[in-house]
Amino acid sequence: MNIDARLIDSALRGWKLNIDRIDEFFHPLSEEQLQKEIAPGRNRLIYLWGHITGFNDALFPLLGLGPKLYSDLEHMFLSNPDRAVPTIYSGKELKRISTRINDSLWGAYSKWSPAEWVEKHTSVSGEDFVKEPHRNRYTILLTRTMHMALHFGQVVLTKPRKSTS
Amino acid sequence: MNIDARLIDSALRGWKLNIDRIDEFFHPLSEEQLQKEIAPGRNRLIYLWGHITGFNDALFPLLGLGPKLYSDLEHMFLSNPDRAVPTIYSGKELKRISTRINDSLWGAYSKWSPAEWVEKHTSVSGEDFVKEPHRNRYTILLTRTMHMALHFGQVVLTKPRKSTS
Repeated sequence: MNIDARLIDSALRGWKLNIDRIDEFFHPLSEEQLQKEIAPGRNRLIYLWGHITGFNDALFPLLGLGPKLYSDLEHMFLSNPDRAVPTIYSGKELKRISTRINDSLWGAYSKWSPAEWVEKHTSVSGEDFVKEPHRNRYTILLTRTMHMALHFGQVVLTKPRKSTS
Repeated sequence: MNIDARLIDSALRGWKLNIDRIDEFFHPLSEEQLQKEIAPGRNRLIYLWGHITGFNDALFPLLGLGPKLYSDLEHMFLSNPDRAVPTIYSGKELKRISTRINDSLWGAYSKWSPAEWVEKHTSVSGEDFVKEPHRNRYTILLTRTMHMALHFGQVVLTKPRKSTS
């Protein structure tokens, strides 16, 4: 493996690590347990799960992979705060939806060459991209991985006290 | 900039983004505000700041840059839970210490070539590294960036409710 392939491999491992630990955290929870707030008066677990899922679904258009798979996630979990939308996906639905999104993204990630990874994402114009070449797919992969880690740090606060690091 | 340099640039931006938002969060806080817990009965802000700082300080030996700069961080904020060690660094001290650690790390990061980034870290043997070449400095950079993001997600919970994403 040459250097650029190794650098991409590291980033994909970071993405996968977060997908896996989020799945492992949420999958065993009942609908009732998903109603728990991460701290008094803050987001519920179900909302954060939908939020992470919706953020990842938005990667399809951003990375040039086509439209979102579940456009309802946007108003349920991104553009509105928790409890603002009366009907949201259940845990059972989010399990199925997030698995489909993550599997499809992984399929695309696995195919891109290093040159394809540093192509521009769709929110930047060709002109701006010349001046700001870091606005590429790979940077998006890294920032979305950080986004998952950030919210994972919050949801683990609902687990019995032991270690959060 | 060729592809591998661009991939490294993206990761360095992710590191810097987290260093900056953590500094921006903690620097204005008084010693009293740093006593606040992220959630009832959980870690105090001062502990998490020290924890992040200690984790980053441990990068010096792990990346082959020499010994830790502040070995006391280990027992104060890593190997013991919050409130277990009677005397810990103050916010004023952590501000100075974390700045020195982060500046020194950044100095090293800025000098490494792509080939140096994919060299093995010091916790893996040469023999194991042949089988597991992802155990390199670059992977450490990414995982430690995720570590900062994870705890940043927790500390922002102490801010007045608005957005946590």
